[in-house]
Amino acid sequence: MGAIEDKFAELATDNAPGQEVRQRDGAFLADLRGNRIDGIPVDFSHGDVDAFTPTPGSREAFLAGVESGGAQAYTEYRGKRSIRELVADRLAGFTGTALSDDDLIITPGTQGALFLAVASTVSAGDRVAIVQPDYFANRKLVQFFSGKVVPVRLDYLGATERAGLDLGQLEEVFKAGAKVFAFSNPNNPTGVVCSDGEIRAIARLAGSYGATVIVDQLYSRLLYAGRTYVHLRATDIDPDNVITIMGPSKTESLSGYRVGVAFGSARIIDRMERLQAIVSLRAGGYSQSVLRTWFAEPEGWLEERVALHQAIRDALLAKLRAVGGLRARTPDAGSYLFPQLPELTVDTPTFVKILRELAGVTVTPGAEFGPHAVDSIRFNFSQDHFAAVHAIERTAALIERYRK
Amino acid sequence: MGAIEDKFAELATDNAPGQEVRQRDGAFLADLRGNRIDGIPVDFSHGDVDAFTPTPGSREAFLAGVESGGAQAYTEYRGKRSIRELVADRLAGFTGTALSDDDLIITPGTQGALFLAVASTVSAGDRVAIVQPDYFANRKLVQFFSGKVVPVRLDYLGATERAGLDLGQLEEVFKAGAKVFAFSNPNNPTGVVCSDGEIRAIARLAGSYGATVIVDQLYSRLLYAGRTYVHLRATDIDPDNVITIMGPSKTESLSGYRVGVAFGSARIIDRMERLQAIVSLRAGGYSQSVLRTWFAEPEGWLEERVALHQAIRDALLAKLRAVGGLRARTPDAGSYLFPQLPELTVDTPTFVKILRELAGVTVTPGAEFGPHAVDSIRFNFSQDHFAAVHAIERTAALIERYRK
Repeated sequence: MGAIEDKFAELATDNAPGQEVRQRDGAFLADLRGNRIDGIPVDFSHGDVDAFTPTPGSREAFLAGVESGGAQAYTEYRGKRSIRELVADRLAGFTGTALSDDDLIITPGTQGALFLAVASTVSAGDRVAIVQPDYFANRKLVQFFSGKVVPVRLDYLGATERAGLDLGQLEEVFKAGAKVFAFSNPNNPTGVVCSDGEIRAIARLAGSYGATVIVDQLYSRLLYAGRTYVHLRATDIDPDNVITIMGPSKTESLSGYRVGVAFGSARIIDRMERLQAIVSLRAGGYSQSVLRTWFAEPEGWLEERVALHQAIRDALLAKLRAVGGLRARTPDAGSYLFPQLPELTVDTPTFVKILRELAGVTVTPGAEFGPHAVDSIRFNFSQDHFAAVHAIERTAALIERYRK
Repeated sequence: MGAIEDKFAELATDNAPGQEVRQRDGAFLADLRGNRIDGIPVDFSHGDVDAFTPTPGSREAFLAGVESGGAQAYTEYRGKRSIRELVADRLAGFTGTALSDDDLIITPGTQGALFLAVASTVSAGDRVAIVQPDYFANRKLVQFFSGKVVPVRLDYLGATERAGLDLGQLEEVFKAGAKVFAFSNPNNPTGVVCSDGEIRAIARLAGSYGATVIVDQLYSRLLYAGRTYVHLRATDIDPDNVITIMGPSKTESLSGYRVGVAFGSARIIDRMERLQAIVSLRAGGYSQSVLRTWFAEPEGWLEERVALHQAIRDALLAKLRAVGGLRARTPDAGSYLFPQLPELTVDTPTFVKILRELAGVTVTPGAEFGPHAVDSIRFNFSQDHFAAVHAIERTAALIERYRK
């Protein structure tokens, strides 16, 4: 049983967002210094759906699903056809590409889509290109399926006018045999968006080396003023080799319903459905109904949501940048800030625990996202504006208290 | 990519319950004989939640989850603690065993629980004992994780006063190195329940050979008059080696909410949570709230539901047993009938398609459940009583039409 124990040891979730309540190790208590700093506790490990509430009409759409009974409770494994048609049509509009209901699967959240996409394209021993830093599950999924993670560096702090993807390294990785490239765009945790040039380079390289690309576009609707977004599937990339993943869990605050979608290569979507049949059968039937509200929000709703997030982003960045030695890039999209901390007297995971204990501020340590980001912390700033600003002030005060 | 293509070829879902709408192969049309037989269409591939509606209060429990907002949308990966505590307490009562919230994980349906349990116990090359016939996903899950399925025969038609599990064969399989035994009890598709002697023998054998047992008890609440049910975890089996799976999708008709649970070995539950984090994060947050209604139904509700199913069971069996050469065992629990058909002029998968086309009756072909059941068909009789009886009459008429 050694192999399976190792496999699950690699899947440690103690520092994962939302899992802090399960931490039992009190070693950090010895490092506590000074008094608690009072304030409204803020959990930056995920967005606050009480501050940014679910899309108007989502609750009613769910109830309509319940009312429609068996026809909605037991859908095809890939999701109810009428909803797939609706969503495919709207995503065709959003991405500027043709899309039919056969090219789309509804999954339990975008996490479900990501799991199925990796499982359907990666075999034991396969090399998979993974960005550093990127969403932690990308790496863990490849490891779970016994693939080999091959890193591609994202120089998000050094680059300007582009995300900072190391395209030379990406080509080397493809040359060395990587058959799959999985990445988030907008990037989680940094909020940077790949430039037109970067997306076209990815398309060209994937084409040259016959690689499959899984692109997680979860945050692509929450795009800030002056930024542009290029959909990978809208380039001349071979459509049979691209899977795009999205869902209404973040910008739309519908995470509690657990629905997402993957769309693209019908060949891969077909595999994903076969696997979904034994993983969870289908996304919750009634929850699928909530997708009827997606890309059909009231006029001005999305614009307002983006503007409110942008205001929080700018307020928090101003506070953070006043901290000496802290480096932060302005996110292009999404609701993550990923500042690099100045040198502290404790390591980042310990500081994260201290921050929670002394200041009621929960963040995610950078090491979750890759080995080069160990001195960063991630904030999901989809929070109450006032509470978030004060939580950042407390964070800044503790950085000073623990500064080396 | 040969390996991954083979892997997904094994996961074919065309004949799986609910997937009939995706069948494109019209070869069976050449075998159509005679006129259509009119009647209310009945889809016996799954229960009809319009005939047996969701537990009273389930909709309200869901809405209370939505109202409670972020605290319910983002739970720990293993599920919200207060709900785990509640459910663990009730399952302790149901199974007559001690159970804490740490020994339980909430999953996207019992399918989710089964997937995580197999993934957390089976490594590539491991031998896994699987009953024939049994729920089709058991076999597919073992194959997906590159385990080796080792069959154990269930002589459900030959046995009386017990399920008919071949205990000698089970011991041989353990002796030959099987480290995991996964089975459903009540059995899906036959509805038989293991006797006290069979359960105690499983416990003894698993103990002797150090095997882990995954027991899917999805239908254990829908137990017919005069039958008794013994919980495997209530025997003297090593509790660290047993995982029990249940959920409110069937008896309680809550399938549309997609929640289930696994409970038992804290060691295995911990692995399952780590994996759930990358498979789907968590069971839908709001849906978890619906578990508050589970084992807390109005007085008399369960008894009435059992009695109504028993009446349908008996009515359908009487009609089926009037068909010459058809063999059917009376189910002890659950809502499946699994008759063995007399010899027909077409094979069973073709007959199943003809039945759907000419009589509006959808059933699941026996081959989905194991290689010895190819001449059987499965009915989920959780249906409108009247419609189900008439659908069985049409089925009987078509059996006569195609009798060899």
